[in-house]
Amino acid sequence: MSVKVKILGLNGSPRPYGATFKLLRTALETAKKLGADVEEINLYEYRIKDCIGCVSDEQLACRYPCVINDDMKIIYDKILESDGVIFATPIYWYTPSGIMKRVIDRLTAFENMIFVDGRSWVEGKVAGVIAVGNDSGEIQVISLMFSILNSMGFIIPPFALAYHASADDVLKNRNAILDAANVGRSVVLMARLIKEFRDVWYDVKLEEWIQRELIRKVEEEAERIKAKTYSNRMKIITKLMKEKGSDNST
Amino acid sequence: MSVKVKILGLNGSPRPYGATFKLLRTALETAKKLGADVEEINLYEYRIKDCIGCVSDEQLACRYPCVINDDMKIIYDKILESDGVIFATPIYWYTPSGIMKRVIDRLTAFENMIFVDGRSWVEGKVAGVIAVGNDSGEIQVISLMFSILNSMGFIIPPFALAYHASADDVLKNRNAILDAANVGRSVVLMARLIKEFRDVWYDVKLEEWIQRELIRKVEEEAERIKAKTYSNRMKIITKLMKEKGSDNST
Amino acid sequence: MSVKVKILGLNGSPRPYGATFKLLRTALETAKKLGADVEEINLYEYRIKDCIGCVSDEQLACRYPCVINDDMKIIYDKILESDGVIFATPIYWYTPSGIMKRVIDRLTAFENMIFVDGRSWVEGKVAGVIAVGNDSGEIQVISLMFSILNSMGFIIPPFALAYHASADDVLKNRNAILDAANVGRSVVLMARLIKEFRDVWYDVKLEEWIQRELIRKVEEEAERIKAKTYSNRMKIITKLMKEKGSDNST
Amino acid sequence: MSVKVKILGLNGSPRPYGATFKLLRTALETAKKLGADVEEINLYEYRIKDCIGCVSDEQLACRYPCVINDDMKIIYDKILESDGVIFATPIYWYTPSGIMKRVIDRLTAFENMIFVDGRSWVEGKVAGVIAVGNDSGEIQVISLMFSILNSMGFIIPPFALAYHASADDVLKNRNAILDAANVGRSVVLMARLIKEFRDVWYDVKLEEWIQRELIRKVEEEAERIKAKTYSNRMKIITKLMKEKGSDNST
Repeated sequence: MSVKVKILGLNGSPRPYGATFKLLRTALETAKKLGADVEEINLYEYRIKDCIGCVSDEQLACRYPCVINDDMKIIYDKILESDGVIFATPIYWYTPSGIMKRVIDRLTAFENMIFVDGRSWVEGKVAGVIAVGNDSGEIQVISLMFSILNSMGFIIPPFALAYHASADDVLKNRNAILDAANVGRSVVLMARLIKEFRDVWYDVKLEEWIQRELIRKVEEEAERIKAKTYSNRMKIITKLMKEKGSDNST
Repeated sequence: MSVKVKILGLNGSPRPYGATFKLLRTALETAKKLGADVEEINLYEYRIKDCIGCVSDEQLACRYPCVINDDMKIIYDKILESDGVIFATPIYWYTPSGIMKRVIDRLTAFENMIFVDGRSWVEGKVAGVIAVGNDSGEIQVISLMFSILNSMGFIIPPFALAYHASADDVLKNRNAILDAANVGRSVVLMARLIKEFRDVWYDVKLEEWIQRELIRKVEEEAERIKAKTYSNRMKIITKLMKEKGSDNST
Repeated sequence: MSVKVKILGLNGSPRPYGATFKLLRTALETAKKLGADVEEINLYEYRIKDCIGCVSDEQLACRYPCVINDDMKIIYDKILESDGVIFATPIYWYTPSGIMKRVIDRLTAFENMIFVDGRSWVEGKVAGVIAVGNDSGEIQVISLMFSILNSMGFIIPPFALAYHASADDVLKNRNAILDAANVGRSVVLMARLIKEFRDVWYDVKLEEWIQRELIRKVEEEAERIKAKTYSNRMKIITKLMKEKGSDNST
Repeated sequence: MSVKVKILGLNGSPRPYGATFKLLRTALETAKKLGADVEEINLYEYRIKDCIGCVSDEQLACRYPCVINDDMKIIYDKILESDGVIFATPIYWYTPSGIMKRVIDRLTAFENMIFVDGRSWVEGKVAGVIAVGNDSGEIQVISLMFSILNSMGFIIPPFALAYHASADDVLKNRNAILDAANVGRSVVLMARLIKEFRDVWYDVKLEEWIQRELIRKVEEEAERIKAKTYSNRMKIITKLMKEKGSDNST
């Protein structure tokens, strides 16, 4: 019997029947078919306020629970309970929608826990991203989301992206549907694989070894390579400059 | 005893003693400390030609082995043998260096195998990214690399990024060093976790179920939600327009 | 006497005394020194709601004035009156802050006027971008903003970017301050140069010539080049494949 | 009679008859129709080597002419002679092609002249960008190119982007063709407007005024605003924390 995992789908579109919904539902139905528990949230039904950037005034002021008292606390809880999260957003000016952006900004309260209790609270959760628009910008949205989510500690499993950037019916876009189904599948498979993982992913304790031993070792090696290659490199640059000089004189 | 994994580090810098080297070596030393086999490659020592885009003339013309006969074949082999790859690049105009870019472009020969034998040949390998520059652009490089590598099938484990964007000595940048060490650690931990995984990550066989059952189900659900919400949504838009109309008339 | 221009500064930070403010004020003071009228807006003092994506239900539903009745109408007016706009945003997860994002999304009501009266209402206005954070992501924010603003019709004058990505005092970062001052200067110089420009920038009337003459001409030329080069290209690819074949056989 | 300007088109595709060519030629034909002199270059016909990053060893080592002796000198000259440059690239893994990337990296020799003679040698030239692929990534390529080119000193005139991300014939994509024609037009119009501009765009001499007067002024204003708003901001954060505290206790 396979490990039980819970997958949360967040829909950042104001149109709950649109292409964003269709791809997200495709991913979640696939996750369900594989045995996962799934839940789907329309973010537009929640009142989620702007991050007010406490962390810039005082590093430790930003922590869970966030000082802002709104429906984000529901989203926070649902993310905490999930093993994987699929972020589905319409493409608004080549970036996620405003509400998806606010959710991301507010997730700092989880990520910043690394300074409070030594661990990002989303570390080791699995993420997938779906981006949908009438025109373009899908890859830029996905690139953004991947670097953000991975910096927070999310795992990005293989092929964790699906998109549709056209006004045509997404359900007729076979590649997009197959990709979205595989986002659901990949997130589930990865969530299962790491379910029993008990170690931390970001190990601050490496610091002691780094300072005691590693830095000196890397420094010495860099010096050794520089001694061997730098003068040669400079000779080549100088030679190139001379060659060009004589070229120019002809 | 832990599972044996092999981690490859690719250095895209022309300066083999610079900050790119230092962060990459930090990651690889950490991987080694954890028991991994590691190998480090300076790409500038290899002659790697431009991708000539065969795939745009004929989809199936792009496959491994690539038609171009150069040192990339050595890199291809080393990637095939590795469980994880750490891509370390200097930041040249907010993007990877030219040679790192060529390596990426040429990896299409692995990725495009999905059309030849049904599977990207880098699927399920683990990736980390290191970006180093004197000024800026590090996150953009990392965002780019993550969406590219994940589209090819690489797994991005938690915190798989490290960067240094300053002319100061990177070995004095404690955050960067700790991040780079954790890139090495995270890639190794993930490579071990998935070492015994035998399933495919991208499952083209989902197509049959999608066409038979899923699309209709999602379509019906979208129609149901649209029936429930669309008229209300239009009412709100119309109401907003009226309110604004009366506002404007005052 | 120089042409009079009006420059608007939009501050997307919740902290009106922070580094975003300092760089924006630097740009605006420089603009003022050059003789421009300047105005500075703290977006957090305005209630700006999410775009609700009317354009995806009905292309012509999105137009100025926007159906949403909130303080954005004040921002709309100020933008309309200005010759140049400097967008200053804190970097929240490598992207603009939530409120800056909402302002961008809502500007669709200006841009989409191209379908209503043939012209984006921000066409030919001049833009500069300032991005400020404690850590990283500045270039990604600027790249995003440039493609968004230029797609709407904004001009990006030379060196229209300034950033500071550090917790240190930005006023001690000489490069950042000089860059910000030059953002103000460059926006003013460009706004003056184009002040008397009366033509449209995006000319939909080119369509007639395109369909009548251009497409056929380009097509014929492409065919001519393909006839000349394609067989040669295929020969090279075939030759490369053979060479590799014999290589592999040795 | 209109001002004479010269527009250079750089094609980064290995397929000189493909969609990249078609959009670039569309832009250049439009520029010609408007009276500009145009020239089109297939970069793949030139031998352009990798940047070797001299600037990281020694800031002033990177200057025009570049130490590397290859066909880039032809490209350098053609860019110097032009008023506007249209960069047309295929989308290879969501980024420009390898050769376009090398051209960009090598342009550092122009940009870095700011440290040699006080001025980027591409400052005030006008740029347009065309991105073409079979699948996706067009906006990411354009975002990248805009921030890079603008950092070097290029002007981005309104609507300076065109793209086609599909395997269908680009000449049947009316939006793409009209956009490409307008790239050509916008670059020409802007090049004319600024042809007689004789000032510098990036003014290093602002530094004196900045240090003497501006920094203190901005600092005092920031202090004043902080005094006015910070305690209130802290009160709100404290109040929010208390509210949440009592919420949690219920």
